[in-house]
Order: sequence, then structure tokens, then C-alpha cells
Amino acid sequence: MLPLNPAIASTFRPPVMEARRWLEGVTFPPERPLINVSQAAPVDPPPEALRRAIAEASLERADAHLYGPVLGRTDLREAVAAEWTQAYGAPVSPAQVAITQGCNQAFCAAIATLAGAGDEVILPAPWYFNHRMWLDMQGVTTVPLQCGPGMIPSPEDARALITPRTRAIVLVTPNNPTGAEYPAGILAAFRDLAREAGIALILDETYRDFDSRQGAPHDLFSDPDWGDTLIQLYSFSKAYRLTGHRVGALVASEARMIEVEKFLDTVAICTGQLGQIGAAWGMANLRQWLAAERDEILGRRAAMIAGMERLPGWTLKCCGAYFAWVEHPFAAPSDQIARRLVEGAGVLMLPGTMFMPEGDSEAERHLRIAFANVDAAGIGALIDRLARFQG
Amino acid sequence: MLPLNPAIASTFRPPVMEARRWLEGVTFPPERPLINVSQAAPVDPPPEALRRAIAEASLERADAHLYGPVLGRTDLREAVAAEWTQAYGAPVSPAQVAITQGCNQAFCAAIATLAGAGDEVILPAPWYFNHRMWLDMQGVTTVPLQCGPGMIPSPEDARALITPRTRAIVLVTPNNPTGAEYPAGILAAFRDLAREAGIALILDETYRDFDSRQGAPHDLFSDPDWGDTLIQLYSFSKAYRLTGHRVGALVASEARMIEVEKFLDTVAICTGQLGQIGAAWGMANLRQWLAAERDEILGRRAAMIAGMERLPGWTLKCCGAYFAWVEHPFAAPSDQIARRLVEGAGVLMLPGTMFMPEGDSEAERHLRIAFANVDAAGIGALIDRLARFQG
Repeated sequence: MLPLNPAIASTFRPPVMEARRWLEGVTFPPERPLINVSQAAPVDPPPEALRRAIAEASLERADAHLYGPVLGRTDLREAVAAEWTQAYGAPVSPAQVAITQGCNQAFCAAIATLAGAGDEVILPAPWYFNHRMWLDMQGVTTVPLQCGPGMIPSPEDARALITPRTRAIVLVTPNNPTGAEYPAGILAAFRDLAREAGIALILDETYRDFDSRQGAPHDLFSDPDWGDTLIQLYSFSKAYRLTGHRVGALVASEARMIEVEKFLDTVAICTGQLGQIGAAWGMANLRQWLAAERDEILGRRAAMIAGMERLPGWTLKCCGAYFAWVEHPFAAPSDQIARRLVEGAGVLMLPGTMFMPEGDSEAERHLRIAFANVDAAGIGALIDRLARFQG
Repeated sequence: MLPLNPAIASTFRPPVMEARRWLEGVTFPPERPLINVSQAAPVDPPPEALRRAIAEASLERADAHLYGPVLGRTDLREAVAAEWTQAYGAPVSPAQVAITQGCNQAFCAAIATLAGAGDEVILPAPWYFNHRMWLDMQGVTTVPLQCGPGMIPSPEDARALITPRTRAIVLVTPNNPTGAEYPAGILAAFRDLAREAGIALILDETYRDFDSRQGAPHDLFSDPDWGDTLIQLYSFSKAYRLTGHRVGALVASEARMIEVEKFLDTVAICTGQLGQIGAAWGMANLRQWLAAERDEILGRRAAMIAGMERLPGWTLKCCGAYFAWVEHPFAAPSDQIARRLVEGAGVLMLPGTMFMPEGDSEAERHLRIAFANVDAAGIGALIDRLARFQG
């Protein structure tokens, strides 16, 4: 292969795909099938009524197959704006909503409007690996912000990391990979810090539908000038089990939408129409169903917490939405432990090393468990296997 | 709006969206409806059988709604490899095929593996505007290569433009915006030049299904070492009328696929599953239908050529696949002419200024007509209106 962009060559390979390669050649006996807690991906398709709505659109609506607006279908943008206005108790308009080909692309679009090669972006560590990958391949320097107690990052710690090249701070709440739900006060403090520094606060709320708290998780949209600082990201993938359709959203000021539109037109032209139709149908019809889904996930979270309490040596550092962030009791680093867990316990999970800077000792002591795909009985089996696992 | 990446701020806004804004507030009387030849987009949805295949997949296949492989569904990659092997008379393997969220994304992925900020890429002018936009927002310098007779770029002219920062030459054949079908010998000469210089040749064959020539349009895949130099792009949007699903392809060496996978995982995670299912169904079942579509487009091309011959003052510079590149007879520049055509003739087309460097006098004399969406009678009406238009 001839010319190669050094920025992409030095970007690490997709962790989920790498972990899948660990399964090659390993057999899992019927009495101990693989427990896969490596990815935050629903294992079941959406409810039949939603699948039927998509099927009917395919048959009956010509526009379901043709180019749509770059920033998304009008009805979906309106639905997001209306739900956000209600959920956050503050007005969000359809013109402040862009629909993207999944939430990863929303992040890429947000960064593209903010930062270029040589700039810096602050990411709390552990981070979502695709965020780090995009920054790496864009030549943007990732500045790690170590999390404090409860896996919550500190605005004061962040302040010390800001330089003239800093363009944004990225927060994910509920967090991937730790599950941490960031308090509203912390988010407001980060917003104040970002505004003072003239940088952006990117807030990824992919897992907002599974937040264990009641009511609005923050009041950032109540600030009439939120658009000067805040860019919020969302995914329809988890709530409506639409992972295979790639539909996400980006909420930002109308002024920034001009720049977002340039990026999306160039990379996407538009988001897939059937996925958008499904997402809008889900928002209109699955509110009750989603509430039950949330209850189920919260039940699994409770099972995870209870299970970890009876697991000697291991420590649950944080747990929420889809994820638990756990400390293992072994001397070997987490990437070795994760590989040994495949054969030794029939369990696939991602090591902390995939979410933190290379050589970080915290990374080597921790693992991420994406427990939301496993029911309470499966979580019990997972705990049993970890209890027998000798490292 | 606070921080702003200067590279995206200086990227021009999406031309198709800008042209649509010219329609705002203009009324088109029933006896003279708008003739829209601004975009290469099928106006009709795919055949009913294809729409039914997608609907059935939505209802019956769970995997149609869930994450799929980053590089695409196995059956679609296999189908592309098999068709390419037959069409180009040389082996292409499924491992050399990646499926992307549309061909624009395939281009972005190709460039991401090759070039970063400060590098250079050679684009024949006129170019496809989204190519220029991606280079601009990535901080990659576009080096224009003026086309010669028949709107064919010259490898010798390109040689003079290569510097130590050059990473690729991009060719589009059949061309957007000119319609030019590049001779096989020209493509081979560009491949030789690229290899000699240690840069890549990106070959965008989005419109390959509508090439007027019989047989393979080039023999680049017959070179056993093609993967060291060539990256080929394709779109399922035009052939199967799947624009709203966003499905494209990138053909490259297996070594480069490791880098492509990083990009696609980060920006896309995967391409939409229903669109891929539709594309695979189309490839398996619509070969005859597509042949008739090609005949229809070639008929429209003939109508376009005949029509331009009876249009005083205008000159058809090139015509093929979906596009005609025409020279207008007026003193005003093409961007003014294009705006006046909306009210003055009820015609929407894009000016040459959207496809060439700013201030280029060739750009100001030319317009692109995306004639493929208009039937032969509509092309006749278009010519009549242009004949009456006074500039």
C-alpha cells in the first residue's frame, strides 16, 4: 500500500472488532455459552409495530427511498425539539436539531465545526473510544482529564488543562464506559468554565433514556444563551433498538447548524430515510414501551450492583445506564485479563486499556461490563463465572 | 457561536441546498412548471419488488435492525466482488470491498487514509463539489487540473502539478459535472503517473452503470499490483434509486481496508442494514431492469445532444451519463445566469462557479445540466425555454 496518512496509521483499530477477533477459534460448550458484555448493543430488534411502520413506509412512501434534507426530516426534527422542550423544561426549536447517521457522526460533525489539526480537546478518562479515534485521525490532540470520586470529572481539574489551543470539553452522561450520571451542578460548572474560556461544551447524552434519576438531568437549555457554548448529542439506537439504521441527533445553535450542514452534506448527504421514519414513529408511539425498557435496564443495574457485592476481590467503581466500571483483583493488566476471560470464563468484556491513555495504571486495573444486554439471570451467571475465574 | 474551526468556516455551503434557496418565493405557473435539472437524483423510488424486499426484511429479519459489520454485510461485499470480477475481467475479492454510507463517505474514507492537513490532492476542474468541500474542511489543499479537449484531463499536465505534499489524484468517470467518459488509456496513464510518484489514484465510478460504452471501461484491475495505487468508489444510489438509503462502496487493497475500517467505525459504525439488503437484492434481481434504465438514460442523452444542436448561441461541451456541461452565450457570469434562469425560464441548474476555483473564467461561462431526471419531452421543453431566455 502506497501513501498513508500518519494520523490514521497511528489511530488504534476499532476495539469492538478487535475483541471479536479474540473469539476466533475458541469454542464455547453448550453448558457454558459465551456471555458477551463487550458492546452496548441491543440484541433484540425493535418492537414488531415499529418494524411494520418501517415496512409500510418502504412500500407506500416514495420519499422513504429518495434524498431528504441534509439536516434531517422535518417531522423528526420537530419531534426531537418538542420532546426536548418538555424533558428539559426549556425551549428547543426544530432549527436547532440536526439528524445524523448515528451519534458517532454527530460527534464527528461537532468536532469538525470546532477544531482542526493541532488543536486540543479535553476528554475525561476513561473515554468513549470512538471519540478518541476521531480526534486522533483528525490530528487533534486529546488532553485526558482524570475522573474523581464516583468517576465524576472535576471542572477545576479541567480548568488547569485549558490552553490557547483548547477548543472543547466533551462529557458523556450517563457515561460510557463508567455508567456515571453527572450531577446537574457539575454540568453547569463545566458550562461556565467553557464559556469563560471561549470553548465549547459537547454533551453526549446517548444514554439519557436510561438515566436512573427522575426529571431533567440538567438545566443547561434553560440558559437563553446556551447555543454559544453547548452542543448536545443523542442517539436513537438504544432507546428504539435502531442500531442497524444509524440515526442520531445533534442539538446546537442555528448559527452552528450552517457549519454542521456543510459537514453532513459532504460526509452523508442525508441520514437514511427509513431509519428516520422509524425513529419518529418510535418517539410518537413507544413512550410507554420505552419506560418499561428503562425499568428493565434499571433492574439489570440493580442485579449488577447486588452481584458485585458478593464477588470477592472485585470492586464496582461505578454503575449506570448500560455500563459497569469494575476493578479486577489480579496482578496482570486488564487487556491480558480480558483475553483470558474469553477462554477461562466464557465472558467477553473490554479492558480499561481501550478507554484510557496508553500505559495508564488505572486502565490496567479496570474493565467495562456492558451489562444491559444480559438479563438478571444472565448477570447472576456472569458473577458466578467471575467468582470462579482465577486470572 | 463561540469557537469555530476556520477550515470549515471557509468551506463553501452545499451547492444543491443553496440552489434550492433560489426557489424561495418564486411561483411557477401551471403552464410552465419548474424544470429542475440541478441534482443527479432519481425522482422515482425503486421498483416495487425492491421496495417489497426491503419491507419484508424489516418484518422478518432481526439483523436488518441491528449493528452489522463495519465494512459491510458479507453478501453485499461478495456480490460487488463477483460483479466487478465479471465486469472488469479481473479478480476482485470481497475482502477488497467496503460498504459505506453513500459514495460521498467512501471518498471521505479514502482521503482520510491518504492525506492530512497541509497535504495536497489534485482534482480535475470542473470537479464534484463535495470532493472539494471535504478537502477544504480537512485542511487539504486542492490543486486544480484544468481539463483538455473533450473535458478530459491530461496525465502530463497532472505530472507538472505533483509536489512532495501530493497524496492523490482524483478522477470521476463518467464525470460529474461534465459527463465525460475517460478513455481506458488515459486512466492507465494516470495510474502509471500515480505509481511513479508514490501517490494514490482515486477513481470515482458512481455513474459506471450509465456509461455509453460497451464492455469494461478500463483494465486497471487487471494489474496484479493495482492495490498499491488504486482506490475505486461506487454508489448504489443511481443504479437502484436508493439515494435515500445511503449505500456506496470503496474498493481497495486489503491492507488499506484496515485504515478504512478505522474511519468507518468512527464515523458510521456501519452502513444501514436495510439499504444494504436493498442493494444486494437489486444486484441479484434487477440486472435486466437496470439495462433498460441505462437505455432510457442514453435516450435522454441523445435528446440532450439533439436539443443543444438547435439551441442558438449555446455550446454543448460534453455530455454523458447524467450530465451535460454547456457554455452559455451571455456576458454575465454563470452564477448570475443560473439565478436568472429560475424566474426567467422556470429552470434550475447549477452554474460552473460551483464546480471550479473562484474567479475562474471558464467557470463563469459554463453551466451543468443534470438531464437524467427529465424525460425526452421534458428535455425538449428545457431546450425551448433556453432558446427563449435572454440572459
